[in-house]
Amino acid sequence: MAVNYKVSLDDVVDIDYNGVRQAITQFLRKYLEASGASGYVLGVSGGVDSSLALALAVDAVGSGRVTALIMPDREVTPERDVEDALRLVRSFGVEHAVIDISPIVMVYISALPIFEDEEKDRVPVGNLRARIRANILYYYANKLGKLVLGTGDRSEYLIGYFTKYGDAACDVAPLTVLYKSQVRRLAELIGVPRDIAYKPSSPRLWKGHEAEAELGLSYNEIDVILYSRFDLKIPWEEIPRATGLERAKVERVRLLHEASSHKRSPPASPDLGEIKKHYKQHAGKK
Amino acid sequence: MAVNYKVSLDDVVDIDYNGVRQAITQFLRKYLEASGASGYVLGVSGGVDSSLALALAVDAVGSGRVTALIMPDREVTPERDVEDALRLVRSFGVEHAVIDISPIVMVYISALPIFEDEEKDRVPVGNLRARIRANILYYYANKLGKLVLGTGDRSEYLIGYFTKYGDAACDVAPLTVLYKSQVRRLAELIGVPRDIAYKPSSPRLWKGHEAEAELGLSYNEIDVILYSRFDLKIPWEEIPRATGLERAKVERVRLLHEASSHKRSPPASPDLGEIKKHYKQHAGKK
Repeated sequence: MAVNYKVSLDDVVDIDYNGVRQAITQFLRKYLEASGASGYVLGVSGGVDSSLALALAVDAVGSGRVTALIMPDREVTPERDVEDALRLVRSFGVEHAVIDISPIVMVYISALPIFEDEEKDRVPVGNLRARIRANILYYYANKLGKLVLGTGDRSEYLIGYFTKYGDAACDVAPLTVLYKSQVRRLAELIGVPRDIAYKPSSPRLWKGHEAEAELGLSYNEIDVILYSRFDLKIPWEEIPRATGLERAKVERVRLLHEASSHKRSPPASPDLGEIKKHYKQHAGKK
Repeated sequence: MAVNYKVSLDDVVDIDYNGVRQAITQFLRKYLEASGASGYVLGVSGGVDSSLALALAVDAVGSGRVTALIMPDREVTPERDVEDALRLVRSFGVEHAVIDISPIVMVYISALPIFEDEEKDRVPVGNLRARIRANILYYYANKLGKLVLGTGDRSEYLIGYFTKYGDAACDVAPLTVLYKSQVRRLAELIGVPRDIAYKPSSPRLWKGHEAEAELGLSYNEIDVILYSRFDLKIPWEEIPRATGLERAKVERVRLLHEASSHKRSPPASPDLGEIKKHYKQHAGKK
């Protein structure tokens, strides 16, 4: 496949955001109506994804049907994030609460025997934080008859940069159709303050946790690579030439994508056809 | 479609259990090898599903690679269940721990403002118990480099009788190919004590919680109906005549199945094709 142009970030971000905004809000409105639920509940972190999800949900179904939970862990969440999240939920006028999850994290830790050293504990405890937040969102969704609105974006989804059954646990995932760089631009357009729209991305699963440092490349680079592969359908091997990005970076994205495929699939099960071969009655013979 | 026989429980349960056992253990062995993980971790409740999952996992990969967690909530779990679970994990010789989740449940409750009355709180708190157990299984899976083994069966899966992101949260789900009545018989054959293999089913999400009382019909009835629909492909309307079961019971199962389809699907997202219509560059034109 001959590629006679360089794919750049401009290709990714130069889209009709008003059209995209309309498509997503219409989807959120219709899905809620069809479900019979009374509204959406979501976690708002002070980062760009959840800020945009909040803005779109309010746009779609009105501020009276959206519940926003701000769930810092006082041990690891920067105070600035909580302030940003509060500023947003107040400006959108939605029902909200701030719930510090650190006592919950601590009771798990004290209830669970520690087998290994502290260093190795960082990821399990980091993921636990994301899963505790999912539990709280579903607790309120169950109580209030609402749907849990996920906030993950397409970049994170495709490279598996999320906690399985943690921040990925939701009923509706409106942003998995937008790359991180698109999310930032749509957020800005829709009125999310610029300092939030362009805040460096972080899951904040531990102190000082920064997404791009952990991933080893920037989201602008990740997005150009993902867009080349999943929208332009350029084979992985040709992406370095098509984008001008180093081969090692493209390989890193390919590896992240492939190693995380279990996170985008339902649990693995035995093949039902194999099992039915052992049926003796008429069903097995069909 | 003319059905000239009565479908009965015998049709469901008269299968070659040795063949089924082999197919599932082979699947569990191969999947673990391919994943590169070091073993399986599962929750063992003292009920038949998790007892069979434990037995099959030990059969497949050996007792040295299986970690069993017994996670009662002392507020709601009958002592007898814990004793049964302990008897099992000891007889299989696997690494295990008993973790009382009641302090964890209580810290959530005290951290979360209660909006509604106690009665309505039963389901959210019940589901929370299942989700806390999932968190603990994943905490250890992350720490030990193991996969979470799910224990849900095909009957529960098809009627949605499980907690979304709770007991359904797993990496591998070996029993979703077997109806509850088949699970009981395979469990007995594989050496699970008869009193556990035929113990009345219960998720134990609250005190006195019994599955068949909540569901309004027996698993033997449910299984005949599901087998008629999903294996014999008999249309819902013809199942009462084909099985001799009351129309109201068949309708109940159909309703449970249809209302739970979101539990068997990934989160809902906007259609990506709709979004791409708003791309301006070459990708959108392809």
